[in-house]
Amino acid sequence: MTARRLDGRELAASLRAQAALAVDAAAANGIAVRLAIVVATRDEGAAWYVRSLGSAAARLGIECQIADLGAAAAPGQIAAELARLSADPQVHGIVLQSPVPAGATAAELAEAIDPAKDVDGANPVSLGRLAVGRPAFAPATAQAVVRLLDCYEVQLSGRRAVVVGRSAVVGKPAAALLLARHATVTICHSRTPDLGAVTSQAEVLVVAAGRPGLIAAAHVRPGAVVVDAGTSAAADGSLVGDVDPAVEGVAGALSPVPGGLGPVTTAGLLLATTVAATKGDVGTVR
Amino acid sequence: MTARRLDGRELAASLRAQAALAVDAAAANGIAVRLAIVVATRDEGAAWYVRSLGSAAARLGIECQIADLGAAAAPGQIAAELARLSADPQVHGIVLQSPVPAGATAAELAEAIDPAKDVDGANPVSLGRLAVGRPAFAPATAQAVVRLLDCYEVQLSGRRAVVVGRSAVVGKPAAALLLARHATVTICHSRTPDLGAVTSQAEVLVVAAGRPGLIAAAHVRPGAVVVDAGTSAAADGSLVGDVDPAVEGVAGALSPVPGGLGPVTTAGLLLATTVAATKGDVGTVR
Repeated sequence: MTARRLDGRELAASLRAQAALAVDAAAANGIAVRLAIVVATRDEGAAWYVRSLGSAAARLGIECQIADLGAAAAPGQIAAELARLSADPQVHGIVLQSPVPAGATAAELAEAIDPAKDVDGANPVSLGRLAVGRPAFAPATAQAVVRLLDCYEVQLSGRRAVVVGRSAVVGKPAAALLLARHATVTICHSRTPDLGAVTSQAEVLVVAAGRPGLIAAAHVRPGAVVVDAGTSAAADGSLVGDVDPAVEGVAGALSPVPGGLGPVTTAGLLLATTVAATKGDVGTVR
Repeated sequence: MTARRLDGRELAASLRAQAALAVDAAAANGIAVRLAIVVATRDEGAAWYVRSLGSAAARLGIECQIADLGAAAAPGQIAAELARLSADPQVHGIVLQSPVPAGATAAELAEAIDPAKDVDGANPVSLGRLAVGRPAFAPATAQAVVRLLDCYEVQLSGRRAVVVGRSAVVGKPAAALLLARHATVTICHSRTPDLGAVTSQAEVLVVAAGRPGLIAAAHVRPGAVVVDAGTSAAADGSLVGDVDPAVEGVAGALSPVPGGLGPVTTAGLLLATTVAATKGDVGTVR
């Protein structure tokens, strides 16, 4: 058996098409959709991501402005920049690029992002609102998990879902979204003693640990749907996920890395920016 | 075997003693600790709870003011009252009593509560902050779950915890707190097909479904620690939990209803109010 491939590229194209329509609609109303990215790191992976986000935005007609504060930026300086962008009526979406300098956490700094512009769901208020079913932007990767599952018509209600990883940007919000869709949700993490015993109970398995090869074939229930949210750089510079390739022989469906969640995440973030620009209010982006 | 009884009364007394010290310290600084409760219901259980909270506060020297807006209060009126109390420097803690009138949800209205005064963790921003490890007040019942487990030195790190119920006031925040303590956490709910199959995997089982007798002996792993957060009124007016009494013969430990979580919840809410009054800032209440 070979797992069905949960390719995200077609879904991403359809999200981009929606975003392009929204950009045109905004332009007809005299609004130039604008995304601001605040960078305070010299991390190469971050730089690569910011460049690719910028060019994806440009292709859709979304203006992308980058505020590079440098890796030595003080937390107060970053928060002040986020607050300034929040108050700027020309800016519709704000992303705080990770990692942030030592001495602050992204969640703490992101409290300075207006929730109506928090298109990557980084402000804890966005996570809290999501958790209680109030309208909010979800972190783009977590939203992409549910979008990709929906695209392939994977049933969630009543299913056992296991999320590996408890980060504020993927694991926790993905768990909240799966719970809202009536899955029975388990969150595992680095302190889970027998990870395989838990993951092998999953009908839907979402892996976001950032550890290449963490999930082997023996950890997966035959026929399970597996979404790989891992993105690590391999020695040759290529992108690798958290799921061992051998899982293909066990799972019923598996999202590839690259070409799975990644394109859906980027396209979803840009779509969220157009929602922020055209509704002028926090939207529940599905 | 009979389960160890996780009695909450002694713990509650120690929390009240801490609160009384804080009230005295505040008084020495000219501060009269004050809790405001906003009521917009004619529900009898709510009225009983508000009265008992008021008298418990009075015994500690905490002033308790009740804003009874009536069951016909408009959502805007409730939110305005919460905002008014948030701006009132004489008020240190604010509780929005459930249920709220149709047409609004408690989570929506509670966004009007200043997080620094949100002693019952009702504002979604408090839940979001808790989830990402930022200082915030937790909902009193969820906080009481972890306090009671700590009091009896129940290990949480690396243990499998199952929470039954996904409410914003108990299930979700209890799951967030257990996860922060490094448990592997599963949330079950009314759409979980085979509840017993999941709950019987729990080393620590927290039940907050509001359905008397939901958890039978067969649903519990032998030796498990069971915390019963259910509080329903029986036909004779007494308080009953969600856990069948027969679970005593299977569990390693069980919190009784009444006398388990209830007293810890009330005492913890009053302690949180003194924290809000004396620190003048959001505290992480453990």
